[in-house]
Amino acid sequence: MASVVRLYVEHPLGAGQTVPLERAQAHYLFNVMRLGEGAELRLFNGRDGEWAARVTGAAKRGGTLQCTGQTAQQRDPPDLWLLFAPIKKARTDFIVEKAAELGAARILPVQTDHTNAERLRRDRLQAHAMEAAEQCGGTFVPEVADLAPLSQILRGWPEGRRLLVCDEARAGEGERLDAFLGRRAVEAPGPWAVLVGPEGGFSEAERARLAGLPFAVTVSLGPRILRADTAAVAALTLWQIALGDWR
Amino acid sequence: MASVVRLYVEHPLGAGQTVPLERAQAHYLFNVMRLGEGAELRLFNGRDGEWAARVTGAAKRGGTLQCTGQTAQQRDPPDLWLLFAPIKKARTDFIVEKAAELGAARILPVQTDHTNAERLRRDRLQAHAMEAAEQCGGTFVPEVADLAPLSQILRGWPEGRRLLVCDEARAGEGERLDAFLGRRAVEAPGPWAVLVGPEGGFSEAERARLAGLPFAVTVSLGPRILRADTAAVAALTLWQIALGDWR
Repeated sequence: MASVVRLYVEHPLGAGQTVPLERAQAHYLFNVMRLGEGAELRLFNGRDGEWAARVTGAAKRGGTLQCTGQTAQQRDPPDLWLLFAPIKKARTDFIVEKAAELGAARILPVQTDHTNAERLRRDRLQAHAMEAAEQCGGTFVPEVADLAPLSQILRGWPEGRRLLVCDEARAGEGERLDAFLGRRAVEAPGPWAVLVGPEGGFSEAERARLAGLPFAVTVSLGPRILRADTAAVAALTLWQIALGDWR
Repeated sequence: MASVVRLYVEHPLGAGQTVPLERAQAHYLFNVMRLGEGAELRLFNGRDGEWAARVTGAAKRGGTLQCTGQTAQQRDPPDLWLLFAPIKKARTDFIVEKAAELGAARILPVQTDHTNAERLRRDRLQAHAMEAAEQCGGTFVPEVADLAPLSQILRGWPEGRRLLVCDEARAGEGERLDAFLGRRAVEAPGPWAVLVGPEGGFSEAERARLAGLPFAVTVSLGPRILRADTAAVAALTLWQIALGDWR
């Protein structure tokens, strides 16, 4: 991993640009990471690529940085959403972190018939996605949406976006993995979403609903039952291999 | 997830077989899971498939179970090893759990030039693999090997086993993902291993060594830098899709 500190900021970045720091950022840079005036770091804001910057002012409650030069072009992931049913806190955090690393553009926690979570700290998950991008050299931070019922999201489904449903209970019923991978040779990348079920699986009503969606494809992720967090990582990997930017 | 308790035991399993419980198992079943005499559960031992069993004796420091009937055939994963460089405790635990779920047959923690860990609690990691199998309906528990230097493992590499090296620093240099996936159409499954590098990447000496191995193939896992634990899950998924039992 890079030993240079990487920081996500909301401010525009560009040659010579001054970037003011918020209190939490100043605390992180000056107290946690022990940077002082003149120290170098890397900045990204999800739009302008990565920039080298220098600390030009360090105070207790704020500070300023100045961009010195661009170090990487902006790189956006494919137009892939991840829909997942939240599980235990640590595993939900994990899913968000992995989705950011694996190149999901948007993360949508969904409430299914067998989902226990009724509330979710969206801001906390968004911070996780940001940290994952900081750690992994990314220049893009996926947006984490508010928790919403799956049925509501499906009702308002955007035209042209396809949906890969990963459902282990349907092993052998859905599209074969072979057929799904075969798409890589013939299909242009387009807007997609991956949906991973909750620990208890989808309800029968949900299965029937999903099976009837013209934009949905169901595949099974191997012969073993995967935990929801494992399934999320495996499904994102499968999609990236078949239709994403791993091609 | 199944609501029936699943327990890994070492004892042989078969029709009418009595299975004695160790103290920790009795504590788990009778105190943690609150099972009493007559309660039903599922057993597996990594060899004899899954069996339904009933509690026939429950005491503080032990107990007995009796097998009533087989509920699943033994199912072994492909002959795939996972070699990984241990990282922070929670992420190492995570890799072992995910490897068990994704169907690795053997898990080998390796010491590389940039690995910090010098010791590893093998028994703790083995228990994690067992728990993962219990949770996920598996009948096989991968063996966790002792931590050993990568160079030593490569010196004693078994004949006929191939090695998939996942190295992000070699993006564009190794075999293309396309070519690796293309093997699925033509290659018989055989013994393989997947090697995932440490957080700091492989050293130049290791890269040179790995590049010269006749049994090794290097691929890059997409254009983003992945954490070691993400890379492990993605690499196992890729291998299962290309050459394993997801085909």
